[in-house]
Amino acid sequence: MSELRYNLISGEWIIVATERAKRPKDFIKAKKEQQSLPEYKETCPFCPGNEIQTPVETFRLGDSRAWKVRSVYNKFGAVSNEDKKERHIHGLYNSMNGFGMHEVIIEHPRHNNCIALMSYEDVENILKVYKSRYLAIQEIKGIECIVIFKNHGPAAGTSLEHPHSQLIATPVVPPQVRGRLERAAGFFDFNGKCAFCTMLESELKEKTRIVLETDNFVAFMPYASFVPFTTWIFPRRHSPSFGEINNEEISDLAKNLKTTLSKLYYGLDNPDFNYSIRSIPVGEKGTDYSHWYLSVIPRLSQPAGFELGSGMFINTVLPEEAAKFLRDIK
Amino acid sequence: MSELRYNLISGEWIIVATERAKRPKDFIKAKKEQQSLPEYKETCPFCPGNEIQTPVETFRLGDSRAWKVRSVYNKFGAVSNEDKKERHIHGLYNSMNGFGMHEVIIEHPRHNNCIALMSYEDVENILKVYKSRYLAIQEIKGIECIVIFKNHGPAAGTSLEHPHSQLIATPVVPPQVRGRLERAAGFFDFNGKCAFCTMLESELKEKTRIVLETDNFVAFMPYASFVPFTTWIFPRRHSPSFGEINNEEISDLAKNLKTTLSKLYYGLDNPDFNYSIRSIPVGEKGTDYSHWYLSVIPRLSQPAGFELGSGMFINTVLPEEAAKFLRDIK
Repeated sequence: MSELRYNLISGEWIIVATERAKRPKDFIKAKKEQQSLPEYKETCPFCPGNEIQTPVETFRLGDSRAWKVRSVYNKFGAVSNEDKKERHIHGLYNSMNGFGMHEVIIEHPRHNNCIALMSYEDVENILKVYKSRYLAIQEIKGIECIVIFKNHGPAAGTSLEHPHSQLIATPVVPPQVRGRLERAAGFFDFNGKCAFCTMLESELKEKTRIVLETDNFVAFMPYASFVPFTTWIFPRRHSPSFGEINNEEISDLAKNLKTTLSKLYYGLDNPDFNYSIRSIPVGEKGTDYSHWYLSVIPRLSQPAGFELGSGMFINTVLPEEAAKFLRDIK
Repeated sequence: MSELRYNLISGEWIIVATERAKRPKDFIKAKKEQQSLPEYKETCPFCPGNEIQTPVETFRLGDSRAWKVRSVYNKFGAVSNEDKKERHIHGLYNSMNGFGMHEVIIEHPRHNNCIALMSYEDVENILKVYKSRYLAIQEIKGIECIVIFKNHGPAAGTSLEHPHSQLIATPVVPPQVRGRLERAAGFFDFNGKCAFCTMLESELKEKTRIVLETDNFVAFMPYASFVPFTTWIFPRRHSPSFGEINNEEISDLAKNLKTTLSKLYYGLDNPDFNYSIRSIPVGEKGTDYSHWYLSVIPRLSQPAGFELGSGMFINTVLPEEAAKFLRDIK
């Protein structure tokens, strides 16, 4: 028998199909070890020495010859700040120029590194650059929302091996963000408290879906996970905007994120995954009802026609089992 | 420069990134011809002679030894009518038993057939079975919505070669369906007419995104297509429920669907794709503001972290170019 579960944050029903149940270890695919890649690749535009191949550098930690993390314009930006924010409406057709920012954050000089294998300090450096770029870009007039994300491996939509993340700042509030805000506001209006803080409190009490607790962050699998091994990392402190993360939290998130990704790396043999930081639209950072978080989505299954036709996902592994599996990997 | 476009029906903004633009023919991948598969496979549960390997048969066109189309229970159903419709709410956790129906429609006896290669009559038979199952299942108490869909190829989420579609009837209105209805109702309340009829009228006037017109149906690419080559097939007649398709329309849809899928088959070398029929919740079939349609989604690109983190999609091909490409394939 299967079960339907409702996700309070996304507003989605998912089906946990235990008839097609898989054990967590069924998701392990034979995957090339990250370390078997070369440490340096002459043709890689992100490797040290090839800095000239990347467009405008927007930020750097470390000096130009021995940098730790760099952010640069995306060479094939989906949006650009050279464009104007202009809306065109004719009849049913509503469009805008592709105004925005699209940057690449080169996470580490070493070609074959990845967060699961880095030191805490390395990861802290990446998060510092995220914050710095977030704060700078939220001041640009016309930017509504900033999405920081990472694609690891081909099933996650990247073919570039060198460890990197991206940032896209959009001139509209993305509909997924708007939907989450509306549900969170509804929850707040009815209950008088933040839905995310309430969920975190409840998960800490239930314990079964917790992956990892650190001082300032909790990694857990949502009750209604839409794909196997979805992991959310929530700050314990109520805070709507990622831009407001403090230094202590950056250190602790580095620890939590690295450890969570290491559990995936060793437990599921370096699976392809995405993560994204889900923050508030830049103009709404003072709200009481929203809460930023980081969402890790391993790409172990392929959504099919039912998912595309209904928005409901069939998940073949119980979040409680997946969480236990990762929790037990030391 | 790129462009953002708003999809009136899905409520989503998409980015058409012409900086990363691909020509339609860049999407052609070397793909095994359907006909190179065997006509019959002894181990295939959907091949004639193996009927005993499928669960309960719910419908059949033709006699038991020389059937044309069969529908059967899905052996690993995501939901089941043996379960009760029961809601459980405790604290923040809202769940339901996995009540519903999950059937497989075996489209043709021949293992290596596919709609693009079938006769109009074969496709008509499949659509007749869709309608028959839709009408029967909408009478089951507790069913809220019926999703008919097809997965063709591994990137579309199937590993079964034998041509088949599926039907899942859900005990809740899926959130994507609810969202579409709300937007359509808002459009109707403001404009006094159906958003889908209005869009169709506008597309027929603009012409640039039309793929194929037949007597009762129009295949076109939505102005804000979220992935390359998304094609919508709209009935010309305003009709909220697929269950109300008439015989003349079934014949014409067979022609339109087969031709559209043939254009994809020959133009892009048998790409993996999904389609789904987007109909109204079963209790709302008399509304003036909704309109069923069939959505074909080729699986040529992989959504990445930005898409997962924002719900906004980056499409690398202009719908107008993709439509022209398919229109020109005879």
